[in-house]
Amino acid sequence: MGKKYAIGIDFGTQSGRAVLVDVSNGDEVATAVKAYPHGVMDEYLPDRKTKLPPDWALQHPQDYLDVLSETIPAVMKKAGVSADDVIGVGIDFTACTMLPTDKDGVPLCFKEEYQSNPHSYVKLWKHHAAQDEANKLNKIARERGEDFLKLYGGKISSEWLIPKIWQILDEAPDIYEKADKFMEAADWVIMQLTGVEARNSCTAGYKAIWNKHKGYPSKEFFKALDPRLENLVEEKLSTDIYPIGSKAGEITEKSAKLTGLKPGTAVAVANVDAHVTVPAVGITEEGKMLMIMGTSTCHILLGTEEKSVPGMCGVVEDGVIPGYHGYEAGQSCVGDHFEWFVKNCVPAEYTKEAEERGINIHTLLTEKAEKLKPGESGLIALDWWNGNRSVLVDVDLTGMILGCTLLTRPEEIYRALIEATAYGTRMIVETFRESGVPIHELYAAGGIAEKNKLMLQIYSDVTNMNIKVSGSSQAPALGSAMFAALAAGKENGGYDSIVEAAKHMSKVKEEYFSPIPENVEVYNKLYAEYKILHDYFGRGANDVMKRLKKIKADAYK
Amino acid sequence: MGKKYAIGIDFGTQSGRAVLVDVSNGDEVATAVKAYPHGVMDEYLPDRKTKLPPDWALQHPQDYLDVLSETIPAVMKKAGVSADDVIGVGIDFTACTMLPTDKDGVPLCFKEEYQSNPHSYVKLWKHHAAQDEANKLNKIARERGEDFLKLYGGKISSEWLIPKIWQILDEAPDIYEKADKFMEAADWVIMQLTGVEARNSCTAGYKAIWNKHKGYPSKEFFKALDPRLENLVEEKLSTDIYPIGSKAGEITEKSAKLTGLKPGTAVAVANVDAHVTVPAVGITEEGKMLMIMGTSTCHILLGTEEKSVPGMCGVVEDGVIPGYHGYEAGQSCVGDHFEWFVKNCVPAEYTKEAEERGINIHTLLTEKAEKLKPGESGLIALDWWNGNRSVLVDVDLTGMILGCTLLTRPEEIYRALIEATAYGTRMIVETFRESGVPIHELYAAGGIAEKNKLMLQIYSDVTNMNIKVSGSSQAPALGSAMFAALAAGKENGGYDSIVEAAKHMSKVKEEYFSPIPENVEVYNKLYAEYKILHDYFGRGANDVMKRLKKIKADAYK
Repeated sequence: MGKKYAIGIDFGTQSGRAVLVDVSNGDEVATAVKAYPHGVMDEYLPDRKTKLPPDWALQHPQDYLDVLSETIPAVMKKAGVSADDVIGVGIDFTACTMLPTDKDGVPLCFKEEYQSNPHSYVKLWKHHAAQDEANKLNKIARERGEDFLKLYGGKISSEWLIPKIWQILDEAPDIYEKADKFMEAADWVIMQLTGVEARNSCTAGYKAIWNKHKGYPSKEFFKALDPRLENLVEEKLSTDIYPIGSKAGEITEKSAKLTGLKPGTAVAVANVDAHVTVPAVGITEEGKMLMIMGTSTCHILLGTEEKSVPGMCGVVEDGVIPGYHGYEAGQSCVGDHFEWFVKNCVPAEYTKEAEERGINIHTLLTEKAEKLKPGESGLIALDWWNGNRSVLVDVDLTGMILGCTLLTRPEEIYRALIEATAYGTRMIVETFRESGVPIHELYAAGGIAEKNKLMLQIYSDVTNMNIKVSGSSQAPALGSAMFAALAAGKENGGYDSIVEAAKHMSKVKEEYFSPIPENVEVYNKLYAEYKILHDYFGRGANDVMKRLKKIKADAYK
Repeated sequence: MGKKYAIGIDFGTQSGRAVLVDVSNGDEVATAVKAYPHGVMDEYLPDRKTKLPPDWALQHPQDYLDVLSETIPAVMKKAGVSADDVIGVGIDFTACTMLPTDKDGVPLCFKEEYQSNPHSYVKLWKHHAAQDEANKLNKIARERGEDFLKLYGGKISSEWLIPKIWQILDEAPDIYEKADKFMEAADWVIMQLTGVEARNSCTAGYKAIWNKHKGYPSKEFFKALDPRLENLVEEKLSTDIYPIGSKAGEITEKSAKLTGLKPGTAVAVANVDAHVTVPAVGITEEGKMLMIMGTSTCHILLGTEEKSVPGMCGVVEDGVIPGYHGYEAGQSCVGDHFEWFVKNCVPAEYTKEAEERGINIHTLLTEKAEKLKPGESGLIALDWWNGNRSVLVDVDLTGMILGCTLLTRPEEIYRALIEATAYGTRMIVETFRESGVPIHELYAAGGIAEKNKLMLQIYSDVTNMNIKVSGSSQAPALGSAMFAALAAGKENGGYDSIVEAAKHMSKVKEEYFSPIPENVEVYNKLYAEYKILHDYFGRGANDVMKRLKKIKADAYK
C-alpha cells in the first residue's frame, strides 16, 4: 500500500483552508485557502439593499460549498496526489455558527422567497444580537434551578444556539415556522458531503446545552422560555448526536462531483476549530491543557470525570476526544490587549525607533520588555480590558493597572499586561485543580504561541509548568485531518483510535519552555497580589467596575 | 505725594525675579530676572573638581547677592522710577533652603578654607540627602510621643531644616562646629539688606518645627537625636522669630550701594514663595484655600484656630498672614503627572496631529478631553504616581488606573488623571472641613492655573466650589511687594495692614470658574468611588503598593 493522505478543512471567520496531510507522519503536503466571497455580512444582505441592525454578523452557506469545490481539488493538484490515495476528509468550524434549513437540508436563504429576510442566513459565531434572549434564558434557567447551568460556568452565552434560535422566533416567526432544521454550519457541511445528518457532540455539547446522558434541556424548560419552543428539540434539532471521532458517512456521488474526491471516501463528524487542535498537538489524555492564543485565548483540557468547575465555559463528554470529558475555559482579552496598547499607549519615539530599525512595534516592545526582571517594574494589572470569561464569567469587569510611578516606562506596562494574562491563566489552572481536574503541563497554539517567546516564558514562569508549542501553523486543519484518518480506519490506511493517530500525526516543536526557578519565586509573590485584587474587584467586595459602567452608560444617555 | 512703589523679589530654584509694583493698585510696572550664575549644583562644587553624591542639590549665596545688585537697579531703570519713590522691599524664597554662616552672617562657603567642603554651601530645598536623618528623627519623635508631629501630618520631611543640619553634623562635624548660625537663605538675604538677623515665622514654623507658643522642640529631644545637638537652638538658631508682615529693618548704607535703593527704605521679613501668594490673590481671611498648581500642588489656607488636621504638611500661627493660623497641604504629582503621560503614553498619531496643527501636545489632549462628559470614560485613577503627600503622607503609594476597556482612548486616560488630582484636592478639602477648618472657596495660581481651563473647571465641578484665578503671573513677587508696602507703613505711602494692602494691590482675574450642577452630580458619584479606593489602598486594607515596591527593590538587588 502506497502513501495515504487525509484532508482537513478549517472553516474560519473569513476563509476556509484545506490541508492535505500525509497520514503516516502528519506532514502537511499541500495547502489551499479560499476567502469567502460574501465574507462576514454585518451591514447588508447580499442584495445590498437590506440593511442589518447593529451586532449582527451573517454568512452565506454557498461560501462553504465554494471552499469545498475549490480547495479540495487544489490541494490534490498541488500535491500531485490522486483521489484514490485520499482516505478521508474532516472539517472544523467556528461555532456556534448556525442556519435554518428545510427538511432536506437546503438553507432557507437559498430559496428566493426568503432571500430578503436576514433570519434565513447563517448566523456567525460573533452575531451578538441575541443578547436579550440570552439574558432571559439565563434568568429563567436560574429561577427554575436548571442543573445544566453548572456545566457552563453558570451562564449561557448569547453566541450559542438556543438564544440564536429564540431570536429567530422572536423576530421572524415565519422563518422559525418554515425551518425544519436548525443546524450548526459544521454539521450542514458534513451533510452536504455525506448526504446524512450526523450532528457532532462537540457543538451540541458546548453550544446547544446537550449532554450525553441527559440530552437537551427539558420540554418544560423550553416551554418556560416560550410555549412555541416546547417541541424545538424533536421538531427542529436532533437527539441523534455523534461522538467526536466517529465516521459521519462517505462522500456521495454528488459531493464527489463537487470536490473531486472518490465516492465512498470516509468523512468524519465535524469539529470546532479550538477543540480539534487538541489531538493536533498530541494531547489525548488528562492533565495537559491546551491554550489557543490569539486575540483571545481558549483553553481546552481533558478530564476523566465530569466536575463542576466554577467559571469554565463548558464541560462535554466526548466533546473533544472520545471517552473523555472535554473542559473549555477562556480569557476574553489576550492579543486584543496588546493591540489596544500599541494603538493607544506607545509614544512616537518608540514608533520612530521601530520604523528606523524596520521592525514591528511588538518586536521592539518585546525586546525592551524582555530586559526587565520579574517584579522590576513594580506594576500589576488585571487583564479585564474585555471583561472576564473564566473564572468570573463577567463581561462588566474592566481593566486595571497599579504601581505606576513617574519612572514607569511603556515596556513595563506592556510586560505587566502580558503578566496579567499569565496570572489569568494561572487562575484558571488553579480553579480546575481545586475542582479536582488535574493539570500538569501546558500546550500552546495560535498566532501568539508561534510568535511570542517572551510571553510563553512568562506563562511558564507564572504557572510553573512546561509549555509545549504546536508544531503546525495549521493546527486545526491538521486535527481535522487526523479525525479524517480515524474515520477511514486502519483497514483503509488510517487509524482505529485517536491516540494512535495522534502518536503518528501530531506536531509539537522540539523546543519547549520550562520555568526558571528564580522567576517562579517572584511570580508566586506577584500572583498572590493578583489573586487578592482579582477577588476584591471580581467577587463583589468592591463592585466599582460595575458602578463605573453604570455611570458611563448614564453619561451616554 | 506722588506715586509710590514697592519691590518684591521672588527667589526661585533657577533664578531671582524682581517686580516693581505700583503701591496704589498693585500694577506691575517693571520686571527683571537674573538667572543664578551657579544654578543648581548637583554634580560638582564650583571648583569643578569636588563631586557631589546622589540626591544632593546646592546653591551659591553669591548668586542671591547678584540678583539684588542687578534686578533692583534694573526695574527702577526700566520703570524710570527714582529710589526716592520706592518705599519698601520684600522677598520670598524657596524653602527650606539653608546655609551655615559665621557670627556675622558670612557664609562659610565664602571662606577659602571651606570652599571644597560641600557642606559649607547652601542646601537647596530639593537636596534629598538627609533622608536617613529624617527617618531617624521621625522614629525618635514618635517614640518620645513628641506633640509637634501632629502639626506636621505626623512626619518631618528630609527637605526641612533639622534633618539638613543633622546631616552636616553627621558628615562634616567641623562645619557644624564652625557654623555660628544655620540660616534660611531667605533670612540671610534680609540680613544682607538690613544688617539685622530677623528670622521669619513662615520658614521657622513650616520648616524648622518652631511654634509661636511652644518655640522649638525641647533640648531633650535634640539631645535624643544626638548629644551634640542638645543646644542647637541657643547656639546656632535664634528664638527671636518675626511674624510675617513685620518690618525686618531698613536698607543700610552698604546694601544701598549694592542695590541702588535709598538707605532707610523699609524691608519686610522674608517669606516663602507659595505662602506669600496668598495675599497676592486677595486672601486675608479664613475659608479660602489657595492652590499653587505646578509640577506639584501646594495648598495654603487660613484658619482662626490651631486644629490638628490629619495629613497636612504643617500649621503655623502667623505663618502666612499675621493673626491667622496658616495651614499647608500638598499633592506630590500634578503637572508631573501629565508630563509623564505625554512622554510615555501618547501615540505617534497624536504627536503627528499636534505637530501638523502646530499646537502643543497638551493643547491637543485637552481639546480632545474637554469633549468628554464626566463619567463617560468609565475610568477612575488614584493620583499617586509620586506618592501621596496629603492626606496620607506616604511616599510609598503608587498610581492606579481602573476601568480600562479595549475602547479606552488616550484622552480619556489624560482626563482621568486630571480628575484624579481633583479628587485628591477634594480629599484634602474634606479632611480640613472634618477637622473643623472651613473652606468655601478655591483660588488657583501657578503655571497650570494660568494655562489649563479644563482642569480648573474639573476642579470646580469635583469640589463644587468657585475657583478664582491669580491675576498676576508673578504672584509671589507681587505678594512680596505687598509685604514691602506693609513694612513701609501708611505714613510712608504704604499700608498698615495686609488686609488694606490686599484690598488695593491683589490681583484676581475677573473670569472665575463655577461648578456646573450636572457635572457636580456625576463627580459626587465618582468621588465616592475614589474615596473607597483611596482608603482601601492608602489606609492599610491592602498594602499591595508597598509590597510591590518591596518586590521591586528585591529585583534590583
